[in-house]
Amino acid sequence: MADAALKQDELYIPTYDDVVAAHERIAPYIHKTPVLTSSYFNELTGAELFFKCENFQKAGAFKVRGACNAVFGLDDEKAKIGVATHSSGNHALSLSYAAGRRGIPCHVVMPRTAPQAKKDAVMGYGGQITECEPSTSSREAVFAEVQAATGAEFVHPYNDPRVVAGQGTCSRELNDQVGDLDAVIAPIGGGGMVSGTCLTMSNIAPQTKIYAAEPKNADDAYRSFKAGHIIADDAPQTIADGLKVPLKELTWHFVSNHVSDIFTATEDEIVDAMKLTWKRMKIVMEPSCAVPLATILNNRDVFAGKRVGVIITGGNVDLDKLPWITA
Amino acid sequence: MADAALKQDELYIPTYDDVVAAHERIAPYIHKTPVLTSSYFNELTGAELFFKCENFQKAGAFKVRGACNAVFGLDDEKAKIGVATHSSGNHALSLSYAAGRRGIPCHVVMPRTAPQAKKDAVMGYGGQITECEPSTSSREAVFAEVQAATGAEFVHPYNDPRVVAGQGTCSRELNDQVGDLDAVIAPIGGGGMVSGTCLTMSNIAPQTKIYAAEPKNADDAYRSFKAGHIIADDAPQTIADGLKVPLKELTWHFVSNHVSDIFTATEDEIVDAMKLTWKRMKIVMEPSCAVPLATILNNRDVFAGKRVGVIITGGNVDLDKLPWITA
Repeated sequence: MADAALKQDELYIPTYDDVVAAHERIAPYIHKTPVLTSSYFNELTGAELFFKCENFQKAGAFKVRGACNAVFGLDDEKAKIGVATHSSGNHALSLSYAAGRRGIPCHVVMPRTAPQAKKDAVMGYGGQITECEPSTSSREAVFAEVQAATGAEFVHPYNDPRVVAGQGTCSRELNDQVGDLDAVIAPIGGGGMVSGTCLTMSNIAPQTKIYAAEPKNADDAYRSFKAGHIIADDAPQTIADGLKVPLKELTWHFVSNHVSDIFTATEDEIVDAMKLTWKRMKIVMEPSCAVPLATILNNRDVFAGKRVGVIITGGNVDLDKLPWITA
Repeated sequence: MADAALKQDELYIPTYDDVVAAHERIAPYIHKTPVLTSSYFNELTGAELFFKCENFQKAGAFKVRGACNAVFGLDDEKAKIGVATHSSGNHALSLSYAAGRRGIPCHVVMPRTAPQAKKDAVMGYGGQITECEPSTSSREAVFAEVQAATGAEFVHPYNDPRVVAGQGTCSRELNDQVGDLDAVIAPIGGGGMVSGTCLTMSNIAPQTKIYAAEPKNADDAYRSFKAGHIIADDAPQTIADGLKVPLKELTWHFVSNHVSDIFTATEDEIVDAMKLTWKRMKIVMEPSCAVPLATILNNRDVFAGKRVGVIITGGNVDLDKLPWITA
């Protein structure tokens, strides 16, 4: 798998064996996160919900699973040169964390306009930031320079089989923890978590349906799913800032083959579900994580009476700017 | 124990057998709450911290343990008449929850100035509210009327052996979950949780030291501890609104006999520790719960190198009014 993964022009589809290998590889560096239940939300939805709390994960998000799998799967020679990515979000934090644990360099290209808190967090984990302008052309140009100068291994946030196999360890844990689910629902942006979930569940629990949840304001995965081919938007605006990126070849493979349906929710529905979850479940989670619950409430007939796993993807929130508090 | 508990003028000291009986009695109605750890806080404090997350407890606070023990320990004849208390906080919620689960009336005297959200929550659990003026004299007069009119069983928020035995189940769980602690620290207001912790740990792990943490602005337990007798303040002002009440005979018994020391923290230290915990551990918790961490940071030499249980007491926060966000 490692060799195939290195060729950007060749699409290696990871297998469940890759998930099992990833799980063994990353176990020392991640939390086995708890699953929480809430009788309040069970009554509200009519379903039996199992919240897999990746907001409690190392670096605050599930993305550390894929990042650790990529970093710790490198041979020593490649590893010592380091890894690189472009991201202003949880993948940047996660790759920096993983590289820090292995003791290798991590180069992150971030827009100069990214919040200082995010930059501080990346540097706190030992990541080295190169700033770009907040445009795709600048990001790609600067990233190419960084990669050329360092020779570092590119770890894409989701269109990478090592990353998808790593994310697949989350639903493997969930299935061990609660067993026999009728459905699993996760937010979808680039589709890394959803793809990992498809990969794992289609192998160990093929009767479990996989649903994806997306902001209506950034519904390119929904439209792709309905159209039967990837539709990529340029710069959608949504409070769920982890879900703005489009599907790519690898994630489209899993989404198009294994997802039962994609549901959407409005910005208000997302904020309401987010605040309600904080209030009733006492957990800090990102707006993205509220999209599945918002769509369950919009589609009660689909989920009522079912045992449903809900992936809470991350908890890296700016506590000074909560969406229900207007300054 | 039940008979003794009913006589207000006689002080029954609960035993560890009462804790074990309480645990069996309340098990169907409470969560066995998870214990979270944080490598960030371990590095910050130099200690190994085990956070017992009672913010995830039913009704959002540990107080449901004592309330359930009182409610489900009543014989059927007494139970059908119902229970009563005066509280504007977590005890009111918890007693309402417990009574609701048993299907018996619960009468709560609350100041008419209490937040509507708190009143709604009590009513949501089926509690019947009688409003009083926001003064001790009005509260006592109105409560006496309610009790006379209903004959309901008074369940004091903490000066009640059934309640203390119930709270003792929390550290019993914690000890099962992580074992061999050098210390346990909990916030102290009236002293119910601290007393339950003393009761349990002095029996099952007498080598474990018990510490209490208190806001400097409401340090009556600290001053009582140093003076050797109960000092009660009238109306201390602190962000940690669960910790304003004074010690009473029963809790003083445990605090004076079993607590190793009481530490205090300023309002700013409490808010900083609260925000830092939300940020790093991704949990929603009340200001009161941040007092132990704030005092650990103030007394690093006491805790460094030790395995320390930290009781996170509750998560019922007004999400529209967070202390670090000024409107």
